[in-house]
Amino acid sequence: MNNPIDRLSINQVTTRDQWSLVEAIDGYARHGVTAMAVWADKLREMGVGAAARRLRDAGMTVTGYCAGGDLTARDGVAARRRIDENRRMIDEAAAIGSRCLVVIGGGLDADDRDLPGARARALERVAELVPHARAAGMTLALEPLHPMVCALRSVLTTLRQANDWCDALDAGPTVGIAVDTYCVWWDPELAAQIARAAGRIVAFHVADWLPDTCDLRLDRGMPGDGVVDIAAIRKMVEATGYTGHHEVEIFSARNWWRRDPDEVVRVCVERHARSV
Amino acid sequence: MNNPIDRLSINQVTTRDQWSLVEAIDGYARHGVTAMAVWADKLREMGVGAAARRLRDAGMTVTGYCAGGDLTARDGVAARRRIDENRRMIDEAAAIGSRCLVVIGGGLDADDRDLPGARARALERVAELVPHARAAGMTLALEPLHPMVCALRSVLTTLRQANDWCDALDAGPTVGIAVDTYCVWWDPELAAQIARAAGRIVAFHVADWLPDTCDLRLDRGMPGDGVVDIAAIRKMVEATGYTGHHEVEIFSARNWWRRDPDEVVRVCVERHARSV
Repeated sequence: MNNPIDRLSINQVTTRDQWSLVEAIDGYARHGVTAMAVWADKLREMGVGAAARRLRDAGMTVTGYCAGGDLTARDGVAARRRIDENRRMIDEAAAIGSRCLVVIGGGLDADDRDLPGARARALERVAELVPHARAAGMTLALEPLHPMVCALRSVLTTLRQANDWCDALDAGPTVGIAVDTYCVWWDPELAAQIARAAGRIVAFHVADWLPDTCDLRLDRGMPGDGVVDIAAIRKMVEATGYTGHHEVEIFSARNWWRRDPDEVVRVCVERHARSV
Repeated sequence: MNNPIDRLSINQVTTRDQWSLVEAIDGYARHGVTAMAVWADKLREMGVGAAARRLRDAGMTVTGYCAGGDLTARDGVAARRRIDENRRMIDEAAAIGSRCLVVIGGGLDADDRDLPGARARALERVAELVPHARAAGMTLALEPLHPMVCALRSVLTTLRQANDWCDALDAGPTVGIAVDTYCVWWDPELAAQIARAAGRIVAFHVADWLPDTCDLRLDRGMPGDGVVDIAAIRKMVEATGYTGHHEVEIFSARNWWRRDPDEVVRVCVERHARSV
């Protein structure tokens, strides 16, 4: 693995608005990229069987399937629906040979002020998914998101909390952690909690924090365009023994989603070599 | 102190776009509010001597002076200018009898990727301010801001970090902590780090997190309009022995700054009684 591109994965959300799944598989492969992460809406649009074949034929490693979790609902019927949806996603992730199912916590209902309660529900429901994941040979990758989307998307906000959840779940290799530079770079405990996650890190996502950022979710920067020392975080992650891919995952409504997707992929390849 | 309004303070930023300092002093007093926090730009516009007299004549307790700190600059001249500015603010805070000078960390220059370095500089410069603060009898209130403004405003992002800085500074009552519900509500360590801050909490700021929030800095919610259990956090803070005011501090470009300021104050009084 001496060529940087062999460690690069592109999360297909990076070309979300430009390419379908088949276009992304072929497009990334055309630039020499050999790994990617897949989103459920795009997979279902293409069909699981056809996608699995195309990914295999293109020699694509699938570094993640997005996004499971969202397990905080108070309403029992809604909660059951999410559990069922996660089980389906575990099976889909297995069908495309994904390294993991990315699991986010879920947010808070607009009238829910009980954050500890929401966290307890989410943890309990991850536990409920473990037997199905284990049977499918699938790893659930707990991904703490940035605290600014705590209410909107994820009550799981820090690597410390992800480590605590792993301890509580005690599920061996069935539960791991996804480290996303954009979500965790600000954390004073970053080095300590990455070290504590040794053996648990199953995905490493990279995006930069733009100094003039203007949106809480859809304004991530390409590595090198912001203030995050991504290489330093990559070194911390690899010091734990992580040997997997570096997955570029850019939500970018104002910039990258508006560009020619071939240019986006070219820039991902360049920036990965230079800034990751 | 059985009447809730006796514990209410209003940070004058809550009526930033409507009222000068003299208007705010008189306006808050008109509604029976007996405590407020003051901003430097407004104080200087009025003049320190005149403001000190007016605050005293109105019977106003000054719960904070905003905002000191901003101590991350790499450039030596800029750093020296900030230290001098902070010394001036310590003197101004003392002149108006403020309970504390609020100190924020400062952000990152757009091309600065060394977050640990910026944190070390900020901590070192707070230490440099301690003798002047001690001589003036002024408390420096370290206020962790929300991690989403780490690059923009404050590399001091969590209560754990503020506690660690207090430990490192070892400055007795000259350095304390300001707890702001909007900045810390998401933190899984909230209860533990508030408990650890016992004896250090010198200011308690309240604002809510709006579920549909649209800005990283100027879209705070009035207590009761969002998802934060402010009363629960207030109880944690008071369980440490804090007996001070509850300071409503709302940056709100799209809502409260556009309203009639007397209405804003009326709502602060109501919501403080009901939701804090």
